[in-house]
Amino acid sequence: MNAADSQWMARALRLAERGLCSTSPNPRVGCVLVKEGKSIGEGWHVRAGEPHAEVHALRAAGAAARGATAYVTLEPCSHHGRTPPCADALIAAGIRRVVVAMQDPNPLVAGQGLDKLRAAGIAVECGLMEAAARELNIGFISRMTRGMPWVRSKIAASLDGRTALANGVSKWITGEAARRDVQHWRARSCAVLTGSGTVRADDPRLDVREVEVGRQPLRVVLDSSLHIAPEARVLRGGPTLVYTAIPDAARHQALQAVGAEVALLTGERGRVDLAAVLQDLARRGINEVLVEAGRTLNGALLEAGLVDELVLYLAPKLLGDAARGLAELGALTQLQQGTDLKWQDVRQVGDDLRIIATINKGK
Amino acid sequence: MNAADSQWMARALRLAERGLCSTSPNPRVGCVLVKEGKSIGEGWHVRAGEPHAEVHALRAAGAAARGATAYVTLEPCSHHGRTPPCADALIAAGIRRVVVAMQDPNPLVAGQGLDKLRAAGIAVECGLMEAAARELNIGFISRMTRGMPWVRSKIAASLDGRTALANGVSKWITGEAARRDVQHWRARSCAVLTGSGTVRADDPRLDVREVEVGRQPLRVVLDSSLHIAPEARVLRGGPTLVYTAIPDAARHQALQAVGAEVALLTGERGRVDLAAVLQDLARRGINEVLVEAGRTLNGALLEAGLVDELVLYLAPKLLGDAARGLAELGALTQLQQGTDLKWQDVRQVGDDLRIIATINKGK
Repeated sequence: MNAADSQWMARALRLAERGLCSTSPNPRVGCVLVKEGKSIGEGWHVRAGEPHAEVHALRAAGAAARGATAYVTLEPCSHHGRTPPCADALIAAGIRRVVVAMQDPNPLVAGQGLDKLRAAGIAVECGLMEAAARELNIGFISRMTRGMPWVRSKIAASLDGRTALANGVSKWITGEAARRDVQHWRARSCAVLTGSGTVRADDPRLDVREVEVGRQPLRVVLDSSLHIAPEARVLRGGPTLVYTAIPDAARHQALQAVGAEVALLTGERGRVDLAAVLQDLARRGINEVLVEAGRTLNGALLEAGLVDELVLYLAPKLLGDAARGLAELGALTQLQQGTDLKWQDVRQVGDDLRIIATINKGK
Repeated sequence: MNAADSQWMARALRLAERGLCSTSPNPRVGCVLVKEGKSIGEGWHVRAGEPHAEVHALRAAGAAARGATAYVTLEPCSHHGRTPPCADALIAAGIRRVVVAMQDPNPLVAGQGLDKLRAAGIAVECGLMEAAARELNIGFISRMTRGMPWVRSKIAASLDGRTALANGVSKWITGEAARRDVQHWRARSCAVLTGSGTVRADDPRLDVREVEVGRQPLRVVLDSSLHIAPEARVLRGGPTLVYTAIPDAARHQALQAVGAEVALLTGERGRVDLAAVLQDLARRGINEVLVEAGRTLNGALLEAGLVDELVLYLAPKLLGDAARGLAELGALTQLQQGTDLKWQDVRQVGDDLRIIATINKGK
């Protein structure tokens, strides 16, 4: 593979990104068909049920596709789903070479699409710009390989790690630019998850308002004892799913009456089973979950090892020790018991710092 | 002033920096003499009582100084101190032009050195690279203009703002590289200040070990009720000053017996008067103070508006809300009551993030 291959794959990745807020539960995929150094067809997957990236690109290229090289950000599918297999379409179109960024993450099918292409005499190369391709579909890969969504926890705090004053006041610790930035994380997420405490304290809508999206993310509320009111704003204007630990028919019906789905997943000590919630979300096709919660739910998810990534906005202020912290982790007795992180990105967003870190689960 | 002027002033600033850890209570000053586009003499102030930067440069240049341009990072002095006035020396040497980064910050003498040079027929320009020159002598300027040192508070914390576990364990939250970096801040400081709580909990030495310094910083302990033991490591191996609020002759003598100076500065509620401590340190010629304290003293200094700058090391870990915070500021009821900061620098130091922010006192 050479520099030109990398350029075309970078183009395919940029095309794939156009599906960032619409393809779920499918992955974001881009495809470029190249012949004699020129793009003769491009495509990206827009949304589930519609054609895959390869099909769009082949349609654009028409008969010119014969003898071309296809750059695809994900291994072409080999199975009949809602659309016919892309591997077959590439073979039928007379594609001579296929360059793929990464294999299908589903371990049960990985490589079968590539095998099918090779069996048809097509030159196949895999792994070009794989890291970027994996990043783009981090949630889809997580769901395919772990049966869990990628869980990203967004927290807005002061530099001393405080998310609200002792009296609950929290609007607004971070600035407008940071709050706009959060909209992008919501937009790319399949689900936004919060706890009943946040619903009662802040009554957030948790929808996407400032970014164009192909679909609103599913709003998910964890409410062990079904405390939230049917009037809560999170229950309006789109699909909402409430997980609870108590089988209270009257309260279930009150929430269902305003359009929410109520699911019972009882865990220990009368609380919702957090791991079961995430497994259930994965089964529902949720790739990326954005957690926007308070210190209690943040702490419980962290303690259970269920958070994959932190997106932390730090405002240039100190609120002091009496203010509320960002995660209840219990009283540790040794520093090693803390949650280890790995910095991914640090930048200024408006007046605030945005720190992205992944949770180091290796210890 | 032109690009060559800026290059020579940048050189003079680099020379001045060589005195970073030795000139106190004097400012760091550098000087370059330039003739026909070449440096003919350089100098920097090394330590109090020794010649000023201009004198070193003039000595190096000798008779060649006649007709040269002098680049000096601070207005040449015009008064007889421990050394004769540098303005006179520049005049006597036949310097034709003097370029200065900033005026003498002492409002009582500012401009007099420049006036003297101008009166002697020398072309004088002032203000080149002034921001860098001010940064270099931020403590000296503070002392001259406010009668207070520049107070820099160093804090090592987890990403969620925790400096120790609930049981007091704090070694080590941040990594080796961050702790080495702290040595540089200590080295440039005239004094390192802590509270009796930190002395009892951590028994730190607070001296400079890994950086070559012309003098150890003064160690200062605030101990309102004189709780620290004469065996404390901070009292060994160099000058230590203990401020207290109680006139207990026996305890004073016990500390004096191990070489510490004890000063009584009683404020409200039986506590040491913090503003009076800093004023007293300024009177003693302390330009820069590095505070290495716990949440109580950090909070008290912040609440009193006495901190100018934060140097915060954030480790890539979360320790949770049960762990100790970094500053006790009382229970705020409005977000505006928090301490406003202004980001100055964010970078990675080893595995940790180092955030430098100044306190925004303008609100």
